[in-house]
Amino acid sequence: MNAITESFIVSTRGKGTYAITADVEEILVRSGIKTGIVTIFIQHTSASLVIYENADPTARADLHCFFEELVPEDYPGLIHTAEGPDDSTSHLKMVLTRTSESVPVASGRLQLGVWQGIYLFEHRNAPHRRSVVVSLLGN
Amino acid sequence: MNAITESFIVSTRGKGTYAITADVEEILVRSGIKTGIVTIFIQHTSASLVIYENADPTARADLHCFFEELVPEDYPGLIHTAEGPDDSTSHLKMVLTRTSESVPVASGRLQLGVWQGIYLFEHRNAPHRRSVVVSLLGN
Amino acid sequence: MNAITESFIVSTRGKGTYAITADVEEILVRSGIKTGIVTIFIQHTSASLVIYENADPTARADLHCFFEELVPEDYPGLIHTAEGPDDSTSHLKMVLTRTSESVPVASGRLQLGVWQGIYLFEHRNAPHRRSVVVSLLGN
Repeated sequence: MNAITESFIVSTRGKGTYAITADVEEILVRSGIKTGIVTIFIQHTSASLVIYENADPTARADLHCFFEELVPEDYPGLIHTAEGPDDSTSHLKMVLTRTSESVPVASGRLQLGVWQGIYLFEHRNAPHRRSVVVSLLGN
Repeated sequence: MNAITESFIVSTRGKGTYAITADVEEILVRSGIKTGIVTIFIQHTSASLVIYENADPTARADLHCFFEELVPEDYPGLIHTAEGPDDSTSHLKMVLTRTSESVPVASGRLQLGVWQGIYLFEHRNAPHRRSVVVSLLGN
Repeated sequence: MNAITESFIVSTRGKGTYAITADVEEILVRSGIKTGIVTIFIQHTSASLVIYENADPTARADLHCFFEELVPEDYPGLIHTAEGPDDSTSHLKMVLTRTSESVPVASGRLQLGVWQGIYLFEHRNAPHRRSVVVSLLGN
């Protein structure tokens, strides 16, 4: 049984989703683990993780729009706005999605469905460098 | 330390929640693992997982209604609707709930609370065959 | 490779967020595990877990307000209200946040970001004793 923890950086260009499936798969293949679990963890509170439809970009366009409408920058009454109107709203979008995600491994492959991709969901307007930690456990 | 990955199919009959606790427990008991973690993962982007109140069906009725109102099929402006008005809305309901869930194991039992059940949450109107992957790690 | 499952109790004083990072870290340090995964699991359906901004209390004040407005106690049409108007609404707030969270471990430390704290999110008005289970897997 092996336990490995690695990390990588994603440079974002503002709000939106950024595919990271290949980054996670590359770490898995290099680890040699055939059966087990991969945990993906984002070390931020104004960006998050989602596993989302990976084929048609309109699906992710709807995702972006829906979250802007559910938690708009002019949401009334927010007080944690020291860094601007995308400060508290970023945390709220993060908490409605995911900070960690665990994906089973079999035959050395992530057991994602055909239409599933792993994405980093950036909630801030400005570009950021985001750190993603990947832990692998298995044989 | 053992690492085991299995899967099972849930045949859904349209929108709603489907109990899968017994399916996960059966895999756990068969594995012989006494201490560790069970990760449950759904391989779809238009269905999700929830751990929800398992006793009173009215709790799940409210869950179904709340999500229909938060993400209604006539939500304005959605463009990913090639498969109908329950296409993009299914992805949005999925991303607000969970794709993976990890449950501790002790004394060979899932450490669920008394009122917790594991459910597959189907977001499409038509019946579907849904694949759930279960990874077990432990002694 | 070790597998350890422990638990602790959090006494809540009604709705709000309660820091539990130190409780989880104490279990990790005592385990001696240096590389692996810590899974935190809450055994309730009317309280949940979040990883949230840990520095400025106004961030969590906004979190509390946002969830009260997204799922208000007078939300129309709810039928699972045997325990009061904070009954079904507690389950809905729970399902929009998290029941389990997995955090990577490296060099014997939780790999949380600088601004991340682990919180129990209580959704009931009355004080409750909440059970949190922590599973550790690693070397």
